[in-house]
Amino acid sequence: MSIQQKPWGGRFEEATDAFVEAFTASVDFDKRLAPHDIRGSIAHATMLERLGLLTGEELRAIVGGLEAIGAEIEAGEFPWSVRLEDVHMNIEARLTERIGEAGKKLHTGRSRNDQVATDVRLYLRAEIDRICGLILRLQTALVDLAEREADTIMPGFTHLQVAQPITFGHHMMAWYEMLARDYDRLRDCRKRVNVMPLGAAALAGSSFPLDRDYTAALLDFSRPAANSLDAVSDRDFAIEFAACASLVLMHLSRFSEELILWTSAQFGFVDLPDAFCTGSSIMPQKKNPDVPELVRGKSARVFGHLFALLTLMKSQPLAYNKDNQEDKEPLFDTVDTLSGCLRAFADMMPHVRPNRPAMYASARKGYATATDLADYLVRRGTAFRDAHEIVGKAVRLGIETGRDLADIPLEELRSLSAAIGPDVYAVLTLEGSVAARSHVGGTAPECVRKAAVEARVRLLGLRES
Amino acid sequence: MSIQQKPWGGRFEEATDAFVEAFTASVDFDKRLAPHDIRGSIAHATMLERLGLLTGEELRAIVGGLEAIGAEIEAGEFPWSVRLEDVHMNIEARLTERIGEAGKKLHTGRSRNDQVATDVRLYLRAEIDRICGLILRLQTALVDLAEREADTIMPGFTHLQVAQPITFGHHMMAWYEMLARDYDRLRDCRKRVNVMPLGAAALAGSSFPLDRDYTAALLDFSRPAANSLDAVSDRDFAIEFAACASLVLMHLSRFSEELILWTSAQFGFVDLPDAFCTGSSIMPQKKNPDVPELVRGKSARVFGHLFALLTLMKSQPLAYNKDNQEDKEPLFDTVDTLSGCLRAFADMMPHVRPNRPAMYASARKGYATATDLADYLVRRGTAFRDAHEIVGKAVRLGIETGRDLADIPLEELRSLSAAIGPDVYAVLTLEGSVAARSHVGGTAPECVRKAAVEARVRLLGLRES
Amino acid sequence: MSIQQKPWGGRFEEATDAFVEAFTASVDFDKRLAPHDIRGSIAHATMLERLGLLTGEELRAIVGGLEAIGAEIEAGEFPWSVRLEDVHMNIEARLTERIGEAGKKLHTGRSRNDQVATDVRLYLRAEIDRICGLILRLQTALVDLAEREADTIMPGFTHLQVAQPITFGHHMMAWYEMLARDYDRLRDCRKRVNVMPLGAAALAGSSFPLDRDYTAALLDFSRPAANSLDAVSDRDFAIEFAACASLVLMHLSRFSEELILWTSAQFGFVDLPDAFCTGSSIMPQKKNPDVPELVRGKSARVFGHLFALLTLMKSQPLAYNKDNQEDKEPLFDTVDTLSGCLRAFADMMPHVRPNRPAMYASARKGYATATDLADYLVRRGTAFRDAHEIVGKAVRLGIETGRDLADIPLEELRSLSAAIGPDVYAVLTLEGSVAARSHVGGTAPECVRKAAVEARVRLLGLRES
Amino acid sequence: MSIQQKPWGGRFEEATDAFVEAFTASVDFDKRLAPHDIRGSIAHATMLERLGLLTGEELRAIVGGLEAIGAEIEAGEFPWSVRLEDVHMNIEARLTERIGEAGKKLHTGRSRNDQVATDVRLYLRAEIDRICGLILRLQTALVDLAEREADTIMPGFTHLQVAQPITFGHHMMAWYEMLARDYDRLRDCRKRVNVMPLGAAALAGSSFPLDRDYTAALLDFSRPAANSLDAVSDRDFAIEFAACASLVLMHLSRFSEELILWTSAQFGFVDLPDAFCTGSSIMPQKKNPDVPELVRGKSARVFGHLFALLTLMKSQPLAYNKDNQEDKEPLFDTVDTLSGCLRAFADMMPHVRPNRPAMYASARKGYATATDLADYLVRRGTAFRDAHEIVGKAVRLGIETGRDLADIPLEELRSLSAAIGPDVYAVLTLEGSVAARSHVGGTAPECVRKAAVEARVRLLGLRES
Repeated sequence: MSIQQKPWGGRFEEATDAFVEAFTASVDFDKRLAPHDIRGSIAHATMLERLGLLTGEELRAIVGGLEAIGAEIEAGEFPWSVRLEDVHMNIEARLTERIGEAGKKLHTGRSRNDQVATDVRLYLRAEIDRICGLILRLQTALVDLAEREADTIMPGFTHLQVAQPITFGHHMMAWYEMLARDYDRLRDCRKRVNVMPLGAAALAGSSFPLDRDYTAALLDFSRPAANSLDAVSDRDFAIEFAACASLVLMHLSRFSEELILWTSAQFGFVDLPDAFCTGSSIMPQKKNPDVPELVRGKSARVFGHLFALLTLMKSQPLAYNKDNQEDKEPLFDTVDTLSGCLRAFADMMPHVRPNRPAMYASARKGYATATDLADYLVRRGTAFRDAHEIVGKAVRLGIETGRDLADIPLEELRSLSAAIGPDVYAVLTLEGSVAARSHVGGTAPECVRKAAVEARVRLLGLRES
Repeated sequence: MSIQQKPWGGRFEEATDAFVEAFTASVDFDKRLAPHDIRGSIAHATMLERLGLLTGEELRAIVGGLEAIGAEIEAGEFPWSVRLEDVHMNIEARLTERIGEAGKKLHTGRSRNDQVATDVRLYLRAEIDRICGLILRLQTALVDLAEREADTIMPGFTHLQVAQPITFGHHMMAWYEMLARDYDRLRDCRKRVNVMPLGAAALAGSSFPLDRDYTAALLDFSRPAANSLDAVSDRDFAIEFAACASLVLMHLSRFSEELILWTSAQFGFVDLPDAFCTGSSIMPQKKNPDVPELVRGKSARVFGHLFALLTLMKSQPLAYNKDNQEDKEPLFDTVDTLSGCLRAFADMMPHVRPNRPAMYASARKGYATATDLADYLVRRGTAFRDAHEIVGKAVRLGIETGRDLADIPLEELRSLSAAIGPDVYAVLTLEGSVAARSHVGGTAPECVRKAAVEARVRLLGLRES
Repeated sequence: MSIQQKPWGGRFEEATDAFVEAFTASVDFDKRLAPHDIRGSIAHATMLERLGLLTGEELRAIVGGLEAIGAEIEAGEFPWSVRLEDVHMNIEARLTERIGEAGKKLHTGRSRNDQVATDVRLYLRAEIDRICGLILRLQTALVDLAEREADTIMPGFTHLQVAQPITFGHHMMAWYEMLARDYDRLRDCRKRVNVMPLGAAALAGSSFPLDRDYTAALLDFSRPAANSLDAVSDRDFAIEFAACASLVLMHLSRFSEELILWTSAQFGFVDLPDAFCTGSSIMPQKKNPDVPELVRGKSARVFGHLFALLTLMKSQPLAYNKDNQEDKEPLFDTVDTLSGCLRAFADMMPHVRPNRPAMYASARKGYATATDLADYLVRRGTAFRDAHEIVGKAVRLGIETGRDLADIPLEELRSLSAAIGPDVYAVLTLEGSVAARSHVGGTAPECVRKAAVEARVRLLGLRES
Repeated sequence: MSIQQKPWGGRFEEATDAFVEAFTASVDFDKRLAPHDIRGSIAHATMLERLGLLTGEELRAIVGGLEAIGAEIEAGEFPWSVRLEDVHMNIEARLTERIGEAGKKLHTGRSRNDQVATDVRLYLRAEIDRICGLILRLQTALVDLAEREADTIMPGFTHLQVAQPITFGHHMMAWYEMLARDYDRLRDCRKRVNVMPLGAAALAGSSFPLDRDYTAALLDFSRPAANSLDAVSDRDFAIEFAACASLVLMHLSRFSEELILWTSAQFGFVDLPDAFCTGSSIMPQKKNPDVPELVRGKSARVFGHLFALLTLMKSQPLAYNKDNQEDKEPLFDTVDTLSGCLRAFADMMPHVRPNRPAMYASARKGYATATDLADYLVRRGTAFRDAHEIVGKAVRLGIETGRDLADIPLEELRSLSAAIGPDVYAVLTLEGSVAARSHVGGTAPECVRKAAVEARVRLLGLRES
């Protein structure tokens, strides 16, 4: 292609270096934006016709041509060319090839700067909606599990040491809550994505009297961006999305860490179905929790993308700089990774089966009801700090003699505090301990069931909207 | 201090290693939370009294003691002790020292896990409000500047090459818009910060029938956290804040980049007041734009904190782990850095003076009105792509002969396109170019003035709220 | 594929979920390792034959089969299968398909864990060598430019304010020095890459008496890894490479920043050839420095990969976990990005042309010789701090009256310090200023020429090695 | 302080804004560099005297004054002033206060730009040496443990599933190997730190004939930096150090993860001494592995610093910019954090006690010798892939009937493969399995002992150097 054939070749004398052409082209990855580019172009052309800058006939030719190109792309028959640099120029050049003169008028009053910013926002808006749907699906699986296992007792940990008994259902609802915040963050982010750059042209707006409110309405944007320089320059919306995605994946990485621990022989708390595991090429006995391991690993990748995007923007003067071409691959891979991880979890969680006896047995070790004993003493008039110290001694006694608290005879317990009576053993059971934590947010089975019902109501509302 | 004097020493036999004591203590930095810790404790005690777990007298002793401790801290007379590990234990131990037995009852039904999570949220909520105020102050300065310089012409850049003329006021409003999104993000973040962990106790809730709605109301939280495990484990709210802060600083870094460019001798677009610059120890002539340089540098630091926080949480199983102690320093430094940078900009911007002649002269170079010529041709019936090519040739002609477009005689221009008439020179002026961009979001002075007025209305509303 | 056909399917009952199969497979990206996988397998088989675990005939069949597979892959005719998970299983399965029973013996005494670690090291070692070659090529271009422009005067900047005159050649040699350290870092990294994991098997070594020194020699590794657990677990070598790559790209990003500044109309210091620039779809006059802009942008991407890798490894217990599958894409993209950026710069720099008059004129503004005046005063007995203050006043006088230092008459200068004599004007010239900085590392043309010669000698030595 | 009292106030009219003064000052953190600043100044003055730019008397006054100032600082009696901006100006101003005129001559031929770069390198060089000493101390503890536990059998894991039996000593030597690479990386980094910027002055060198080789020799630098622009601009050496530190901490985070797992009740593999643990404010029974948890957390912080430093430098044009002031806090905190974590581990590891029976019992579960059975079949002529499949079936049989491999009667095993004979049970023992892995790098006790001896020799050599 001679330099004059480039869409911007007029002032150039020398052809682009072949390696540079490939190095600077983006069509290999930005072609993913094609459907959004076509939709945006149709809206732009519709508005141009309204202004009288296109005739009705020209508009129909452009719309028909773009739709045909969309079909070509979907069918995998579009002749993408690296020399045409990007998705925008590929489509525009093809349009002119197909419909002639009218195609050359499409770029009136716009620039690739506002065009690409619009495409990326249309793309991301659609992906956020899809991702929110996946979050709701995963949350539903968690609520199902929480209801089914509202009475299932397991050890709760702090510092990976047995702390207090909790219910498995309560644990599932903790994951549910994290995802609820992730969902809300994505909805908040969507508000800022849903603003239209188109009409900002290169950076200053256009000398044509563009009707940006009309184009925005055609594209379901809430409004046109209020400042043209800002509209083409900033990618904060994409960074905000990457931050939201990083938080979802941080949460999924934590879930993964727990699933990996729980499927170890040492914990043995849950069983993952074979369909979500793989084996070893050398060790015939292995069944590995690949999905959570991989999700844990993939979270790091999205953090990396967030940092790439932040650093990329950091010191760019306004308005558009070529650096910004580098915004797409991290963003696309963030979307793909997040979607894949959510889908894998949403598919897997309904098949996770807790091993109730193993969890119960584990909760019985480690003096998990020591806090209950302290609270018992408080109810009998001991100040909490003193109660804490008394129970600390009881635990030391238990460790030295290899007995759990419930196995220490009353007499020995009373030697530590006379306030202890025979009714103490009721609070030392796991069932008693979890049932007692029945206030808002507590681990008691009744609380878990109530929280699950409330969650169902919320999920129904969101799915309908 | 013997191990038995530790608040948790009951079950331990061996004293803590002295280096380990210092290495694991957090009081050196978490004492910043003291006022929030005291406020939270007072609310907790008030609720305990309502439950009958404290007498009215005990409550009064606790409140009085905590207030006295708050005064001691403010006066710099509090005897902080590393051996007491953190701000919570320092204050509780001091309380018992001051008021005796009642102090030992304060920790009833709570744990340091829910206590610290509550303190951090109270702290961050207050800081977000303060930071939002600084953003509004900076935005006001930008709107003032935008109105004053709505007619001031400067070159707009893409790829740091002169692109099209814009107005300085329009440029200031681009910064305004970025900050408006930053403000909204912080408000959205605040919603998620403003939820109360207290009552989650160690991880499972308490065996006392805590009235968490009451405590939440006392502390102005919107509601208690719905799941105890989640409440003590997650720091996503702090990470979200760090992401918001990173975006503000990304924007401030971009402003800084521009100010540094603009104050260079080569650009000479603006003058920074001496009060915001420093000199050189060796070169007597230097006047350096220290503030924007430092802000540009400080943005990196906050990105680092965001990354630290994300990585910190990534693979922790529930519930609380000691790793989380590391959440505080990055968060505090993020708050301080963001506040400092915003304040520096808010103080500096009212004193920034554009050098109008230098900007105007610069805009006249670089064929900034080439797009206007292409649009002119479109209005005369040339398809945009053809117009672009014709103007490209005109620019090449200008470069070869050392003339700007407005200096090429009509005859020569007409040799490139017969559609060009004598009225072309009106669109080739800078004033004509900017005035033509008068649609929503455009750079025309009238648009800038309108945008500034709308911004004032918004700022007034936010300051009142 | 039934679960029994999986290379590890023996103990499984249930087939892998189809989405999970695709989600966990790596063959789409790890097939890049194929040539190294084949080379490693041939070395392993050769060693097995030496131990008597393969017959000579079996070895010949394996070697022949693997070579044929290598040819298939190179020709693009290899039937890659996602169901076979990764490059290793694809090749092994194909080998057995081609040569029968002997193929099933190849995996004796090894695991995919040591196999993949070996492949990645072979791959990275080769890429480091290629990248080092690119660095030397770019350095050569810089030395050429430095020699050609050893006398070319330009302003040196600190804080982007004119500081002191320097030579363009000196500036080029600063870039040369940065790259010299980058080269050394990569060579240091290569030492740690060049250690062989093979023989570590899954994690504990093999029950066969493997001759690892022999295999290491066949593969040109400096030695076998000394601990099997470590050998399969750690990816610090890849992270170290990503850190080295990040530093190279940090440097290239700084070069880019300067080239972008220098090609702006405001600076106008250098001209980039058309072949390394592109234009605008809307603004016909634009010629954008795409290559440096893109390189500046791409640096962020590699920083992101470094962080992804660090975070990925951070909390994994030994030995291999599936998370590590995520090490490959960031590593591969780091290699590609670094290579592409180095190549683009190495191609472009020989064509960069400094605009000598523009740089000279720019150096004359901004009181660049103020330090020379201070040094002059010191040589005449004034203490440096006093001299600095005197010159500060002279500069203020110059600014107020719009004159450069060299334009202030002697009488006026003497009113500031009687030590100033008529010979002062010699030190106030740009030529005098740069020539005076003639010690080791200084900007004097003679120093630049000497540094360039020394660099040439070094480059010759490295290219030969 | 009036603007004229600033060391650079000559050309300024307006005083620095008070907030800006504090915001831009660095003395609060860079005073840590004082001893190095003093040492550098003494070397610089000694060289100036050699050039005749100071008299012998002036030199003696300067040296005496600086030494007295060093003593003041050490005694905590130095009057640090934020208005004097940084450590350099504080010391220089104090020197002039103490010794008069001669003090004003010290800054001859240098700038704060080369001064601070020199100070940071002197500081970092000393810290690297100290940190290397801590690594050797920790490695020694690991080798001691490895020797003591060379025969202690534990389960080796992949994917946190029991994989094959290994020895605890072998595991300790894996950690040793990681640290050996960390040590080497720091030594390589030190070579690049150990180059002297002094003499580069502001950016271009000095007009005085500085003898930089002499100053470098006085300060034990290997050589002066070869290019003045590069010398004052680049901080790649600090970033390289942060990358090295990140790798050490990535390793320590992995050790920590394992220690935390191993001290859980579910694993119970090791016991940490009370002195390295803390308790809970609410749960009297808790003993938490605080040190490893905190080290795991602190690794994230250093990754953040690395990222901050990389991003900070990324787009700065040469030479020095104020952004670089932000290099110090991340660097200092990286040094402190790394030192603290290494010290904590070096103190703790000698006291870690493996729970041999628990590890042995755990290794017996999970079919850890399945690979040995496959290898047995290979030695009897079965191809490895077929052997793998046979053993897979044996494992499935074991799982279905609740028996370990060693508990399945010969008859049943032979029904899967006729190649199995009565000698098979020898390879199914844990002892047999580990002893068989006796090649270089294997887990056999004899290999561990040999590796430990070799490590001792290396450590002795390094400690002597």
